[in-house]
Amino acid sequence: MSKFATVTKRLVLGRPFRSDRLAHTLLPKRIALPVFASDPMSSVAYAPEEILLVLSVAGASAYVYSPWIGLVVALVMVTVVASYRQNVRAYGSGGGDYEVATVNHGPRWGLVVGSALLVDYILTVAVSIASAAANIGSAVPFVATHKVQFAVAAILVLMAINLRGVRESGTAFAIPTYAFVVGILAMIGWGAFRTIVLGDEMRAESADFDLVAEDHHLVGLGFAFLVLRAFSSGSAALTGVEAIANGVPAFRKPKGRNAATTLLWMGTLAVTMFLGLLFLAHVTGAIMAEDPARQLVGAPAGYEQKTLVAQLADAVFTGFSPGVWYVIFFTGLILVLAANTAFNGFPVLGSILAQDRFLPRQLHTRGDRLAFSNGILFLAGFAIVLVIAFDAEVTKLIQLYIVGVFVSFVLSQSGMIRHWNRKLRDETDPAARRQMRRAQLINGFGLFMTASVLVVILATKFLAGAWISIVAMGAIYFLMGGIRKHYDRVTQELKDAEGEPVTLPARNHAIVLVSQLHRPTLRALAYAKATRPDVLEAVTVNVDDADTRKLIDEWERRGFSIPLKVVESPYREITRPVLDYVKRIRGDQPRNVVTVFIPEYVVGRWWEQVLHNQSALRLKSRLLFQSRVMVTSVPWQLESSERALSRADRARARPVAGDVRRGVSAPGRRPADKNGEPGKNDTNGRNSAR
Amino acid sequence: MSKFATVTKRLVLGRPFRSDRLAHTLLPKRIALPVFASDPMSSVAYAPEEILLVLSVAGASAYVYSPWIGLVVALVMVTVVASYRQNVRAYGSGGGDYEVATVNHGPRWGLVVGSALLVDYILTVAVSIASAAANIGSAVPFVATHKVQFAVAAILVLMAINLRGVRESGTAFAIPTYAFVVGILAMIGWGAFRTIVLGDEMRAESADFDLVAEDHHLVGLGFAFLVLRAFSSGSAALTGVEAIANGVPAFRKPKGRNAATTLLWMGTLAVTMFLGLLFLAHVTGAIMAEDPARQLVGAPAGYEQKTLVAQLADAVFTGFSPGVWYVIFFTGLILVLAANTAFNGFPVLGSILAQDRFLPRQLHTRGDRLAFSNGILFLAGFAIVLVIAFDAEVTKLIQLYIVGVFVSFVLSQSGMIRHWNRKLRDETDPAARRQMRRAQLINGFGLFMTASVLVVILATKFLAGAWISIVAMGAIYFLMGGIRKHYDRVTQELKDAEGEPVTLPARNHAIVLVSQLHRPTLRALAYAKATRPDVLEAVTVNVDDADTRKLIDEWERRGFSIPLKVVESPYREITRPVLDYVKRIRGDQPRNVVTVFIPEYVVGRWWEQVLHNQSALRLKSRLLFQSRVMVTSVPWQLESSERALSRADRARARPVAGDVRRGVSAPGRRPADKNGEPGKNDTNGRNSAR
Repeated sequence: MSKFATVTKRLVLGRPFRSDRLAHTLLPKRIALPVFASDPMSSVAYAPEEILLVLSVAGASAYVYSPWIGLVVALVMVTVVASYRQNVRAYGSGGGDYEVATVNHGPRWGLVVGSALLVDYILTVAVSIASAAANIGSAVPFVATHKVQFAVAAILVLMAINLRGVRESGTAFAIPTYAFVVGILAMIGWGAFRTIVLGDEMRAESADFDLVAEDHHLVGLGFAFLVLRAFSSGSAALTGVEAIANGVPAFRKPKGRNAATTLLWMGTLAVTMFLGLLFLAHVTGAIMAEDPARQLVGAPAGYEQKTLVAQLADAVFTGFSPGVWYVIFFTGLILVLAANTAFNGFPVLGSILAQDRFLPRQLHTRGDRLAFSNGILFLAGFAIVLVIAFDAEVTKLIQLYIVGVFVSFVLSQSGMIRHWNRKLRDETDPAARRQMRRAQLINGFGLFMTASVLVVILATKFLAGAWISIVAMGAIYFLMGGIRKHYDRVTQELKDAEGEPVTLPARNHAIVLVSQLHRPTLRALAYAKATRPDVLEAVTVNVDDADTRKLIDEWERRGFSIPLKVVESPYREITRPVLDYVKRIRGDQPRNVVTVFIPEYVVGRWWEQVLHNQSALRLKSRLLFQSRVMVTSVPWQLESSERALSRADRARARPVAGDVRRGVSAPGRRPADKNGEPGKNDTNGRNSAR
Repeated sequence: MSKFATVTKRLVLGRPFRSDRLAHTLLPKRIALPVFASDPMSSVAYAPEEILLVLSVAGASAYVYSPWIGLVVALVMVTVVASYRQNVRAYGSGGGDYEVATVNHGPRWGLVVGSALLVDYILTVAVSIASAAANIGSAVPFVATHKVQFAVAAILVLMAINLRGVRESGTAFAIPTYAFVVGILAMIGWGAFRTIVLGDEMRAESADFDLVAEDHHLVGLGFAFLVLRAFSSGSAALTGVEAIANGVPAFRKPKGRNAATTLLWMGTLAVTMFLGLLFLAHVTGAIMAEDPARQLVGAPAGYEQKTLVAQLADAVFTGFSPGVWYVIFFTGLILVLAANTAFNGFPVLGSILAQDRFLPRQLHTRGDRLAFSNGILFLAGFAIVLVIAFDAEVTKLIQLYIVGVFVSFVLSQSGMIRHWNRKLRDETDPAARRQMRRAQLINGFGLFMTASVLVVILATKFLAGAWISIVAMGAIYFLMGGIRKHYDRVTQELKDAEGEPVTLPARNHAIVLVSQLHRPTLRALAYAKATRPDVLEAVTVNVDDADTRKLIDEWERRGFSIPLKVVESPYREITRPVLDYVKRIRGDQPRNVVTVFIPEYVVGRWWEQVLHNQSALRLKSRLLFQSRVMVTSVPWQLESSERALSRADRARARPVAGDVRRGVSAPGRRPADKNGEPGKNDTNGRNSAR
């Protein structure tokens, strides 16, 4: 990004142009961690639980496998983190897996990653909110009995916040994330202390229930399959790891190394929390049943199964309810925050895909609030559909999840191997080569692990729901491919065959559309004259006889030098008669040009816009379809138009979702802020390209 | 209208301009009658019934008053028809009551009439469809038990048909209207023959039930009030009489006299049918209860009260079910047709009000399908609300009806009295004066009658629902007044103080926005050059470094004589940097002008439009708010844009609701129809203003 500042300065030709004063805030590691890691760390809130849930199908005896599954998941996580530390050092532009796949495998594979990630964002919202509902429901029974409604409402609230735009700040991410980490680690630490040092026996509330296996005949292959499925679900802990790779530009310098360090912290914390929770579950004997009503024997009537985190907090902080509430509250909060990061990340990814013309171009420019809004509505809409379709049950939703994540992991890691191969070809320094080899080895191991996990996921979850994600990915892939094809076709059609002479127009016939002799008309006539056309005439459409006659009389009385033509409109239309007239005067001469001047007056209030200029708008849009016709609007600003100007400025001053993770503070309000908020953290900022 | 043709021909300056060939069909009386009279004649389907319903409150003994009430209603109807025969001779432009009130009482009173009629159109739809549902329900029990759903569905179907546009034809109105008239008259005639000549005793199915009075203590004033209320409801038979006054321009010449004759026919038929039905009701002893469940003793369990027309048809055509079905079917059909005339009349009235700037201007031009569509949606929406709110019960809805009609009658008749006073002032010929005196007398009697009825209606129905109509009329009145005030203010602000010199721009600084060097850009550069501005430069917004550098390289390589400026856009916005740059180069010199050339390429499919030009559109709309800035679109038509052209032509070829009643056939399709459909009935047509 800093490259940007210097390059653009060099590029400015002509007189320098003062752009808005900007606040460009880069993130220190301690802030970057919560900003990017709330998503991956929040997944430890449901991943351990899902392992127990899946194993419960075979009964409590299967729980002996849970530590081993946890260790394998942790191993994969360590591998993935190590691999991504290579990625962020090599690709620092924020394109993440999409960029790695595109550069090393070609755009088609990049598009696969893009589709996978878009689907994944939707699932992140659905799963995180469903899990938040379950956790909050563990403390507030009303939420537990109205989980779907709560989840839908939460998504709608997030949507509204992101549509409106909030000024994001690192602190807003930091407090809940660190509070969550502190809470979970404190719980693990205190639990370990009680067990190991004090020798207390901590019992989860479910520890004394009997767990009835749903399938008693699981042996051999069937049982192995179940264990693999538990592993697949546990792998949900890895979701979100790639977030830091997308956020490298927002880091302080040296960006790559800082991002790698942050990844390490994140990985360490996530693995610790993940294994710690599984340990506590083991110690407290917590039982999670896939189908509590049927599987739990000995539970009181109407027993609502609490989440694992809530049960563990109860067991560890026996009698100390503030501790319990703290853990549950911040677990719920970080899950909501994780859902919110999807709202931030979705438009950023959309913007990157739009840059490569896989999505509508307007998504690329930050200024397009409408495009952002559409993205947010789209995301919220699909997340709500999923939440309703799957009863806001994490266990059901998680079957659809992580396919996309691991597709993206695999393509990214295999891309990195190619990346190092290419680098090694040109590198001769032995030390550098050694380092590259080492990085390649790490990525290779990462590829092996993630590919294995992907196979396991596909095998164990395809029928359980993963096929839905895959179908959605395919649909998005082909849609984006189609958009790209369209843009390419247009580019081809627009390409100027160099050498083909640019025909300068030979004759410019200008007409000024006149309805009344008011100030906008007079201005348009004067402006039209100033463009010195070869022919200049005023044209009026006869919609009403009396009005037209009055106009002609006035025209003649004032002795305008420009002739006034009257065009018939027996049906009181405006567009068609003008179009026909323009076609006629344009004629067949390919070098003749017609310029249509349209005097417009501009009003400010929305209801005023309903009352005005509808016909001018329609006429303009129809004239655009006529070849060799230029359409010139000559606006006259009415007093009320001032309102619209200030309204537009206000809208612009509103922040856009995902600003923080792009290292961008909202642009200063104009003009009041011009000298305010100079951006304290602006280490290498580009203020104005002066 | 014929005046229009000759005047406009004279007005055309310059070379004559060939407009579309048009088919302008004027209506012979035999077609005009069904086109305009389906609405007033259909009301005889429910007016007699409503008289009986209201009287039923006081028990069967009150029915002795029904013939007398019927005679008074018939007298009012004769008076109103006679009065309107004066109106149509004096005011032939199609403005109807609105015009009469505006010309003679001033625009405020005209606006009152306009508001009253707008409300009335909505009620025409609601009442007619509710009555159609009741009549069809008399033959098809399923409709009777799902009346509201049926009515809503029927309104939606009418809405869809009118949104889409159907090519109207006089025949489409003639067949059902004449079939209805023939059916009702045949029923009355055969019934009279059976009673008087054959001496048959015809009994309606309800004749043998006992009718329990809802209020046994109605005496004196209370009873008189009830009789007046019955009279009010019966006056619903008069609704729609003014339709012919709005349709005078569609008549053949002599328009006024033909319209007056048609009014006479219509009045004769309506009065005959109205009194005939009351006669049959009397003869057959039909009983209509306001609350059948409580009032009818002796009725079988689950008895659904049929409409009066259905009961009479049963009684008269005993055993001849085709006759019964015929009457019920065409009664239902003409009621639907009456609702449809509101869909036709509503936009016509809107167009007239828009001409006087009481409604958004775009309603005035026929070409604006969007405006028509909004009107149709509005009408259908409110009608549906009424139907649902009042359970599709004619008896409830009718309380809201006719207030508006009679407000309009009263203002129109009093306006006519003033009209004749004015005429008499200038007229000296004794024969002409005698005739005017006579006409004034008729209008005076009309005023007396309609004013009396209005008082009765207000007194008997205000609390029963008429207040809703009055509140709605008031709201519409003030809304339209506000719109007019706004337009007046804008006109004032735009008015050019004559003598105020038109400042010719001193310096035209033109910029061409460049994003890539493709054909639209090259064309825009060439066009911009052709307008010979004082300064010409190309401007690009640096959204992406690499792209910008490529553009600059190519620009330099090809040695363009126009300088290229790069404008910074750190946030990848386009609009704001361009706006700021334009402001800067415009400077403070009031005679400097900036022209912004925007190369645009034009695509045809709607989804292509989603993918393109969003930023150009936004930029253009923002630039309009800058003073002294002209915005010129230089379009480049891609191949697919052809589609949009033909789509627009197809849309244009679609007829617009209400064409027939304005004496307009849909404009010929282009270009195929140019020589087709020359308009056989075109007696004084204006084909092309050649």
